[in-house]
Amino acid sequence: MEFKLLRINLWTQKVREEKIDERTLRRFLGGRGLGAYLALKEIPKGADPLGPENKLYILTGPLTGTAAVETGRYHVVGKSPLTGILGDSNSGGQFGPWLRFSGYDGIVLESVSEEPVWISIIDGEVKFHDARDLWGRGVIYTEKKIRDRVGITKPDLGSVLSIGPAGENLSKIAAIMNDKYRAAGRTGLGAVMGSKRVKAIFVYGHRRIELYDRQKFLEAAKKLSKAIVEHSISQSLTKYGTAVLVNIINEHGGLPTKNWTRGVFEKAQQISGEYLAEHYLKTNKGCWGCAIRCSRVAEVKSGPYRTPVSEGPEYETIWANGANTMIGNMEAIIKINYLLNDMGLDTISFGNTAATLMELYEKAQKGELPEDKAKKLLDLLEDVEPTWGNADAVIRLIWKTAYRDGIGDYTAEGAARLAEEFGCPDCAIHVRGLELPAYDPRAINSMALSYATSNRGGCHLRAYGVSFDVLGVPKKFDPLKIDLEKVKLIKWQQDYFAVIDSLVVCKFNTFADAPEYYVELLKYAMGWEDLTVEELLTIGERIYNVERLFAVREGRGYRDYLPKRLLEEPLPDGPAKGRTAKEALETYLPEYYKLRGWVDGKPTPETLKRLGLGEFLYIVA
Amino acid sequence: MEFKLLRINLWTQKVREEKIDERTLRRFLGGRGLGAYLALKEIPKGADPLGPENKLYILTGPLTGTAAVETGRYHVVGKSPLTGILGDSNSGGQFGPWLRFSGYDGIVLESVSEEPVWISIIDGEVKFHDARDLWGRGVIYTEKKIRDRVGITKPDLGSVLSIGPAGENLSKIAAIMNDKYRAAGRTGLGAVMGSKRVKAIFVYGHRRIELYDRQKFLEAAKKLSKAIVEHSISQSLTKYGTAVLVNIINEHGGLPTKNWTRGVFEKAQQISGEYLAEHYLKTNKGCWGCAIRCSRVAEVKSGPYRTPVSEGPEYETIWANGANTMIGNMEAIIKINYLLNDMGLDTISFGNTAATLMELYEKAQKGELPEDKAKKLLDLLEDVEPTWGNADAVIRLIWKTAYRDGIGDYTAEGAARLAEEFGCPDCAIHVRGLELPAYDPRAINSMALSYATSNRGGCHLRAYGVSFDVLGVPKKFDPLKIDLEKVKLIKWQQDYFAVIDSLVVCKFNTFADAPEYYVELLKYAMGWEDLTVEELLTIGERIYNVERLFAVREGRGYRDYLPKRLLEEPLPDGPAKGRTAKEALETYLPEYYKLRGWVDGKPTPETLKRLGLGEFLYIVA
Repeated sequence: MEFKLLRINLWTQKVREEKIDERTLRRFLGGRGLGAYLALKEIPKGADPLGPENKLYILTGPLTGTAAVETGRYHVVGKSPLTGILGDSNSGGQFGPWLRFSGYDGIVLESVSEEPVWISIIDGEVKFHDARDLWGRGVIYTEKKIRDRVGITKPDLGSVLSIGPAGENLSKIAAIMNDKYRAAGRTGLGAVMGSKRVKAIFVYGHRRIELYDRQKFLEAAKKLSKAIVEHSISQSLTKYGTAVLVNIINEHGGLPTKNWTRGVFEKAQQISGEYLAEHYLKTNKGCWGCAIRCSRVAEVKSGPYRTPVSEGPEYETIWANGANTMIGNMEAIIKINYLLNDMGLDTISFGNTAATLMELYEKAQKGELPEDKAKKLLDLLEDVEPTWGNADAVIRLIWKTAYRDGIGDYTAEGAARLAEEFGCPDCAIHVRGLELPAYDPRAINSMALSYATSNRGGCHLRAYGVSFDVLGVPKKFDPLKIDLEKVKLIKWQQDYFAVIDSLVVCKFNTFADAPEYYVELLKYAMGWEDLTVEELLTIGERIYNVERLFAVREGRGYRDYLPKRLLEEPLPDGPAKGRTAKEALETYLPEYYKLRGWVDGKPTPETLKRLGLGEFLYIVA
Repeated sequence: MEFKLLRINLWTQKVREEKIDERTLRRFLGGRGLGAYLALKEIPKGADPLGPENKLYILTGPLTGTAAVETGRYHVVGKSPLTGILGDSNSGGQFGPWLRFSGYDGIVLESVSEEPVWISIIDGEVKFHDARDLWGRGVIYTEKKIRDRVGITKPDLGSVLSIGPAGENLSKIAAIMNDKYRAAGRTGLGAVMGSKRVKAIFVYGHRRIELYDRQKFLEAAKKLSKAIVEHSISQSLTKYGTAVLVNIINEHGGLPTKNWTRGVFEKAQQISGEYLAEHYLKTNKGCWGCAIRCSRVAEVKSGPYRTPVSEGPEYETIWANGANTMIGNMEAIIKINYLLNDMGLDTISFGNTAATLMELYEKAQKGELPEDKAKKLLDLLEDVEPTWGNADAVIRLIWKTAYRDGIGDYTAEGAARLAEEFGCPDCAIHVRGLELPAYDPRAINSMALSYATSNRGGCHLRAYGVSFDVLGVPKKFDPLKIDLEKVKLIKWQQDYFAVIDSLVVCKFNTFADAPEYYVELLKYAMGWEDLTVEELLTIGERIYNVERLFAVREGRGYRDYLPKRLLEEPLPDGPAKGRTAKEALETYLPEYYKLRGWVDGKPTPETLKRLGLGEFLYIVA
């Protein structure tokens, strides 16, 4: 089995095809794992994330676009301008499968283009096109124009990946978008693509994915599919989408509200999945080959927040731009989500940044910021008045952020830099520079460890303690009780999710699946007859260590911590009233290091040897 | 007396100083007249308005920045991308005087810059600066950043002229902005500046304006000043600004409503100058050296249309974005005005274009557009629903127009091209491609001739029949009655206003002044002791003919006409119910040609000879 990588030098516009050998695949699979490994080898230490030395890896995995369920995704990897360490993000839609069908299993964007370009890859043929007239345009119009130009306007045929103005203007919270409403949102890789002056990539083709034993693969895929569709969480996702979590997490007192100063939002019901389904849902929609179809196709028919039929918003988006900014209006959130997608901004990072700005504004007015900083902030705001719950100010801020206008020149840098700039670093709730997602670890304590040790910064997709602390998968824990068994589960999830992101498969499978399914699928896809669950999880652990090594080599971002607010300010209300995340983090972290074979956040030489990562011993020597 | 022109070649970044000889000045004065003359000599026939052959003339006149009242203005001239013929526009604020104080009486931007630049001119020293990081930013932030960089942050010292994203993105309705809220708005010269990749020009300095006899000049200036401040219209402008006209013109049934399908707007009172003064006015403000101070400093303190303390909106802006789009909400209009200024869009052209889009949308839904055009339009709208009166859609459209996103890629072309693109050319109300201003000639018939014969396209500033048809200056006429005396007045105004724009003086003087004042001022400013009123008006006539010659040479835009709607569709309500502008135009035009010495819109060779324009005989030969 071979993995065909398309290397594109943007400066010379030369392309070359590279075969990834089977040994490397068996050590890193594809997607996130392969990306991390290549990035660590190829991106020099200290490289400017927005300079020509950085590379952008757009990768599928051995299961992408196959008959196995939920394999319609792809993964992007590169050095993050937001965190300064390895960044990566995952997205659904149709781009991943169509990339494989176009003839390649992955693309590496190298160097930078002199002028804006877009690239088409159709049945193995790579072409560069002038994108100067697309520069500055939103994602939706860009997709439309590109499809008009290639003459493939049917939305199910081929796929466009692009950046919006946010990526072009090097916003550190810019997303890479595909299929209009799908985002590889986190860690600001949209800015990396923008720095390379690649506006878009169109993929289409007829390549048949090779499989070692097609018949047996199909049988194994059928078994997985059955497990997925029969699981109650899958069914709930079909019905309400991810937004089903709004009420659940709010009831646990862990829905971060008013920039993480509270854990309960009074208007949660009005921004819940149930409310969305009742009032604005047109239908649900799935990625390529999906059986769950969690995406919400919504519409706001009239009024100031009118939004055409379009995908979204997801739970994270609703939270970040709803509870966290105190906007309790679902119509406004649907519009905000639409605009963020069109401008190519990460909805989680943006919502956190908007909430941080609101807190800074409140502090500036109360005289709680240094005088010169407060003056500068108020001078820059112009017609944006970031009061809590002000949806119109947030809409204006989206536009300003995407085009870096006025205060938007600062919000485009993300919450951490914004808060630092205006004299209140602790007003930004982030880990390693990446803004946190929608679960308060003071109320769901497994998330304390999950966030602190996430290699890409504050993230719920490296390990998802909510799964057992709230949803009871694999079994139910008390979210407020400290329990060392959770540490094992977090570490296990981190390794397993690394596998999932490398295969590349949707994480929503993991409520219902188990590694056994993928061992079987890989046997028949790749011919790895002797593969075991242990080896698969070791691959995950290897990937997790490679990612950490990137940070260690950079000399930054390997310290595991939580924002001060979560450690020192107790929640003021709800079931977790009075709690901080301090005790949980301090109890869990040493245990976690033992399990990982790490000291102070760094892998030991022994750990690297055990994982077959001897080539990187120089980093920890 | 000398006139110092700074010629800037943007490609080579070489500058040279050119003296304009006194003979030329006495034939064309400065500002608009000098610009038209130089443009006709220097811009080759058929030049692409957005190519390197076009030039942009930024000019003051012999009275700019002197002690004479209302001389704080400047004039820009170039080939218009909107009309394809000579374009020009005039703006107040402080830029004109500061340009003279910086050491030059005018700037000519030639060729195009390779990368975005901004230029500083301080006490005669010209410097080029990298503007790549300003590209894409709004006018307000641009001014702020430039002032920070030159270290002159006090708003009264020096002045910034700039373009917003609309100009950068070559919107054909882009304005050149200065002093944040001041616009040389008409004929799309912002796009010419954008095509030359000049983001901004900062001027500052200490040059003393030379005067032939300073003492006598000051005495003459005092007389003019007295006449101005004592006149009732000046006083009304001080109190209510230009918006005082909303109710007056509405009562005459000539306030174009719903894209010129009606002449009365029910909500006129809510968007009137009186309403503005009562609810949102902070103070009034004047340009450099102004005694009238007509500018409205307004604020919307809270709500969805919150707008910080800022200048505007003017009557034209209120009308175009209010009555014409059926938006009867002053707060929304204040916000719209603010955003249009920040994005650098001409408020008249934009409001007309938005109203045209609303009509197209209505027609598309009723099945009154060709099927393929209707489909294309509806496909492009996405989250913009341009229903009559929808302020939120208009706000979204501003953003899209400035950045040419989706439907904004088409509205950025102006009303005429938009209407043409979607199959209803007569849905755009324009003359020569320039959208009409706020007076319906079916209700105020002198404006029929005024619009039809305006050299730059549909305009109320070439001749202002409203002055006698409505305001009674120099005497009151019946606006509905056809009267050939009006033809003489229109022709006289055209010549006189050409003088006013070339001096460069504010047109609001013309309610109270008379040519005699300027003859006297010019005697003492320039030493033209033998100047007479007749010669001054002949200069105006000469300028008017030079402008027309530009169109004749281009082979387009010299036909004098009115939009079909105004000739064929009677007004449905108000005092002018049942009227069209057909009879007025057909009666006035032959008489006008006789007075001008024109045939079919073209000056005869005899006329050119009479005006001393023999060098251009080749154009009409």
